[in-house]
Amino acid sequence: MTRSPRKPEDRRVDPLLGVREKRRGKRPGDAYVRIFRPFEDGFKRGDDEGELIATERTVLGRTGWRGTLRRLRTFLIGRPIHSEREEHERLTKVKALAIFSSDNISSSAYGPEEIMRVLALVGAGAISLTLPLAGLITVMLAIVTLSYRQTIKAYPHGASSYIVASDNLGSGAGVLAAAALLIGYVVTVAVSVSAGVAALTSIVPDLYEQRVLISSVLVGGLMIGNLRGIRESGTIFMIPTYAYIVAMLAILGYGIARTIMGDVPRFEAPAAWETVEQGGQALGLFLILRAFSQGAVALTGVEAISDGVPAFKSPEWKNARTTLTWAAVIFAILFVGIAFLVTTIGIVPDPTEQQTVLSLLVRHLTGDGFVLIIAQVATALILVLAANTSFADFPRLSSFLARDGYLPRQFAFRGERLAFTTGIIALSFMAIGLLVAFSASVGGLIPLYTLGVFLAFTLSQAGMLTRWWRRREPGWRPGLAINGLGTLTTAVVALVVATSNFFQGAWLVIVLVPLLMLLLLGIHRHYRDLDKALTLDHIPDKEEIAPRPIVIVPIARLDRPALRAIAFANSISTEAVAVHITNDPDTADEMHKRWPEWAGTTALVVVDSPYRALIGPLLAYMDALQRQAPDRPILVVLAEFVPRHWWEYLLHNQTALRLKLRLFVRPNTIVADVPYHPPRA
Amino acid sequence: MTRSPRKPEDRRVDPLLGVREKRRGKRPGDAYVRIFRPFEDGFKRGDDEGELIATERTVLGRTGWRGTLRRLRTFLIGRPIHSEREEHERLTKVKALAIFSSDNISSSAYGPEEIMRVLALVGAGAISLTLPLAGLITVMLAIVTLSYRQTIKAYPHGASSYIVASDNLGSGAGVLAAAALLIGYVVTVAVSVSAGVAALTSIVPDLYEQRVLISSVLVGGLMIGNLRGIRESGTIFMIPTYAYIVAMLAILGYGIARTIMGDVPRFEAPAAWETVEQGGQALGLFLILRAFSQGAVALTGVEAISDGVPAFKSPEWKNARTTLTWAAVIFAILFVGIAFLVTTIGIVPDPTEQQTVLSLLVRHLTGDGFVLIIAQVATALILVLAANTSFADFPRLSSFLARDGYLPRQFAFRGERLAFTTGIIALSFMAIGLLVAFSASVGGLIPLYTLGVFLAFTLSQAGMLTRWWRRREPGWRPGLAINGLGTLTTAVVALVVATSNFFQGAWLVIVLVPLLMLLLLGIHRHYRDLDKALTLDHIPDKEEIAPRPIVIVPIARLDRPALRAIAFANSISTEAVAVHITNDPDTADEMHKRWPEWAGTTALVVVDSPYRALIGPLLAYMDALQRQAPDRPILVVLAEFVPRHWWEYLLHNQTALRLKLRLFVRPNTIVADVPYHPPRA
Repeated sequence: MTRSPRKPEDRRVDPLLGVREKRRGKRPGDAYVRIFRPFEDGFKRGDDEGELIATERTVLGRTGWRGTLRRLRTFLIGRPIHSEREEHERLTKVKALAIFSSDNISSSAYGPEEIMRVLALVGAGAISLTLPLAGLITVMLAIVTLSYRQTIKAYPHGASSYIVASDNLGSGAGVLAAAALLIGYVVTVAVSVSAGVAALTSIVPDLYEQRVLISSVLVGGLMIGNLRGIRESGTIFMIPTYAYIVAMLAILGYGIARTIMGDVPRFEAPAAWETVEQGGQALGLFLILRAFSQGAVALTGVEAISDGVPAFKSPEWKNARTTLTWAAVIFAILFVGIAFLVTTIGIVPDPTEQQTVLSLLVRHLTGDGFVLIIAQVATALILVLAANTSFADFPRLSSFLARDGYLPRQFAFRGERLAFTTGIIALSFMAIGLLVAFSASVGGLIPLYTLGVFLAFTLSQAGMLTRWWRRREPGWRPGLAINGLGTLTTAVVALVVATSNFFQGAWLVIVLVPLLMLLLLGIHRHYRDLDKALTLDHIPDKEEIAPRPIVIVPIARLDRPALRAIAFANSISTEAVAVHITNDPDTADEMHKRWPEWAGTTALVVVDSPYRALIGPLLAYMDALQRQAPDRPILVVLAEFVPRHWWEYLLHNQTALRLKLRLFVRPNTIVADVPYHPPRA
Repeated sequence: MTRSPRKPEDRRVDPLLGVREKRRGKRPGDAYVRIFRPFEDGFKRGDDEGELIATERTVLGRTGWRGTLRRLRTFLIGRPIHSEREEHERLTKVKALAIFSSDNISSSAYGPEEIMRVLALVGAGAISLTLPLAGLITVMLAIVTLSYRQTIKAYPHGASSYIVASDNLGSGAGVLAAAALLIGYVVTVAVSVSAGVAALTSIVPDLYEQRVLISSVLVGGLMIGNLRGIRESGTIFMIPTYAYIVAMLAILGYGIARTIMGDVPRFEAPAAWETVEQGGQALGLFLILRAFSQGAVALTGVEAISDGVPAFKSPEWKNARTTLTWAAVIFAILFVGIAFLVTTIGIVPDPTEQQTVLSLLVRHLTGDGFVLIIAQVATALILVLAANTSFADFPRLSSFLARDGYLPRQFAFRGERLAFTTGIIALSFMAIGLLVAFSASVGGLIPLYTLGVFLAFTLSQAGMLTRWWRRREPGWRPGLAINGLGTLTTAVVALVVATSNFFQGAWLVIVLVPLLMLLLLGIHRHYRDLDKALTLDHIPDKEEIAPRPIVIVPIARLDRPALRAIAFANSISTEAVAVHITNDPDTADEMHKRWPEWAGTTALVVVDSPYRALIGPLLAYMDALQRQAPDRPILVVLAEFVPRHWWEYLLHNQTALRLKLRLFVRPNTIVADVPYHPPRA
């Protein structure tokens, strides 16, 4: 606090056009000249009166450890992006296919295997049912795709099940769909990453023990990639999707060609597998349904594109529809192709789960060489990136929910890179939790997976059905029929999944979805009640002037921070009172003695506290003041020392912190912190 | 915020004599009458002008969950005690012996055993050396006691080694002694409680596995007992000490009488013990020294009485000296008596550590019956209460240290029961940490124990030596001789302990003491530097008036909390500016439109934030204001909603919290929190 002896010029500050003036000469009579416009540094003028626009400088450009943190952040996720660039961050169809369909397409890598594993419970013979089941699932996919093409057209600003169900079936159905989807997305991340790591450990078995750690690191990588923003993550994640499609098409072509030529020998299960119990269960409808529902995971990716319509380049809905169709076609070819080859060759899933069926197939066709490694790496990559679909969808859905007041408002806030930061981080942590809880086992996670998504499907389709019926727009009859079939199909699958997998884990979803729904509704209710309480229903009476506050300054001793606090109090009030609470009568006498020369005419009240408490007597004193003027707020001015190092906080301000917590809940009380920064030695 | 349409009477509030007035009639011209004096509720008037004395009511009498917490607290530790009662809380000699000497006297329970355990490494024959070693330790105790009688007389206000060493050898030596003692006290608690629990598990072996838990619970009980205040803990803890003394004297008398009559058979070690390796090491000087240093633990209690002189009834030093002598005599009788009996009968320590030697002795003399249980329970109790000595000393020493600025000031603060709350709690947690780390093993903890205390002894005696030499008061020659002998003795023991137990754990103390010393000196330096920076070296110029603050009110939307914040800002400044930072141009337009009817003439600045950041642009805006008036502080008025339930905090104020943390470190910035409490629905 080194001040020049000249009194500071207490000139009025202009909050908007602000100019700082300087005397032309040195004599008091000399005129002032404007020397700079302070707002030019970091701001531009807006169009309206009283409007400023912040530039990037206000966000960047820090010094010290905050600057270091900022540079690390820029290195990891890039520079901030201007809101207006949102349009330019939109996705082309080629990128959108990679981002939104990697989930769908990658299901072909493990879908057939999951069907076979259930059938293998009956015996090797039952595995031949894989191909018909794969065909059935493909037909179902066609129905759902057709159905969702209509949804996308009807909701070009985002065809999430949450929106469609809310809009047509009421907010309850919408929140139910949202809860189911949120859980589905978290499970998707866990399943996809686990499956990706399983593809990797098929060729490097030593890593099997580390699979939870590897999976978690991969989720962390996805989190950082997505915090960089949607367009960049499109670029990063495009290559693996297309690499997988090309590699698989090539292998399927090669395999089918050789099969037609009768060139492929039948698969012989290694002798070691014989010791593991396989088969023995009777083949019943229930088991077939379970096998079917395990395969139905392949459809979970459909929602992704509908949810992401606003991220497409214009015309959004047309591009989204085309992309959806392409994704379905590619998936169908790969899924049926793989199912055909593995059943023809007679591949049996590895009961020890150390090798995937796809890996067995490629190994059988091309041996232990280069092709196997390429195929497995491409599979691993696309599976990990399938998780990325959820990283695109979960944050967007939670932003819709936050906008409507079902989730905390942070979820609706776009970060510096236009990504929904909070949603991305929340998804990552929940997925890692799930990976740890289920030891990154695909088989363990799958039962949790399908139910939520199919529940959302059903609600979305049912919403469309209602919409067609109510509106009866031109062409409503075929539309109604398609969505009707879609509703029926997905509802049946949801029921099958719920019953056939109930004890394998579906029960957990059946418990969690309603709980999450209650949480969302609870948050909504809180925000709604609060809104009612806080919003002004009438324009306040302009005559009403807030009463002047009663100003008190608790001081512990006579020092510079206390002096500053008293000076501040005097600058805003003519009747500020300093209060010294003490348990030592001697220091109280001393303070009384020194006070007049120290603080002039400011009133001092010494409160003796023979029970050595500080907060209780202060609150009682405030109550006594309050009784004299119940309408006036009490302003408590606190002197606080600002330590230079974090550890110094342990030595200071503990009492001030406790006091502030107490004053925060006291009605009609305002706390002003006057920090004192000691000069650098 | 329901206000009557009548303007609030903005009458001046009297901070001291406060009266609230009321109109006699209802017409404006009617006179006011005084109706009550608000300070009569909770305060009395002090003798000085402007002085109030808080009553117990200001500390008690809360409602809601704070009231519940307060009642629980009163139940556990009692009602607050008035500072003036400190005199009445003083200890009589009988109580002081129980509180301060339980450590010393209880050492007789495990001292002989620790000597025997080291000697047993040579073989059963070497155990006969126990009695001579016990004699040697008793002689040493006599020297130290004589020496400390002089210290107590010289320092009647507290003869802690820290004070004596600081006073005569400089603050460095004082802090070294303090560091050694603090560590010693923590270890004392751990050792005593472990030994007490060992006495218990000797008769109830099933509890052996739970010893860490039992020990921790006992430390927790001691903590609560001590928080109740020193006098009450004296009452609680008196009985076990005297019960142990009486029980042991009776058993020793009975045993010695029977021994003299030749009535006691020799002890035969159980066959099971033979399988455990005993003996084999050569009997050398080193091993004898180790056995001696294990026995020297018995002396650690001496410091306690010297430290606690101010807690005695007047005349303090005389009473303390007498108590010290009595404690030494009682200890000597028990220690030598037990050593004599066990060696005469030929008892060998249990290599499995499941039975204490004392338990073996009593069992051998009286069988498995009633006497054994009484003896063991009394032993367990006094050992646990020996820990209580540290609970009396550690907090007092840390209060001395805090007073002198070597520890955070909280340590010097007497709680509601006149106990040093912070020190008691800190000691408890550190002791529990040590118990967990060492699995509550007496043998493992002992090597940590003796070194610190003997280091402090040596420094204290050396301080007295210097004092005699400098002052040469009447009778200084014998005084110098006694303290010289004391210094020599304790220095030799410290050296013996450090070298003979180095690898058993003394190294840890040798590392920790200097580290703790550095910490204390670092804290001291910090407080000293700060004092220099904060204290006013000259009376400030009365002409100097603090400049009016620039007042800004960041608002997120137009609602009741914002209205309150703006009203407050206007009540203390004529040029307050509301700032709305937004990334949505539409809401900005809306706000501009509604503003005039909403906030009258208060200026509104809208800052468009196209990078969606809030804090960066606000800080940049403040910088721009600051450049116009570098001398004026900026007052940031924050509207804050006060949630009714803890979980609602998760949904609110996150941004406000981050903002406050940033503003706290900004120079020349004051933050005023205007809380808004929503009306109860």
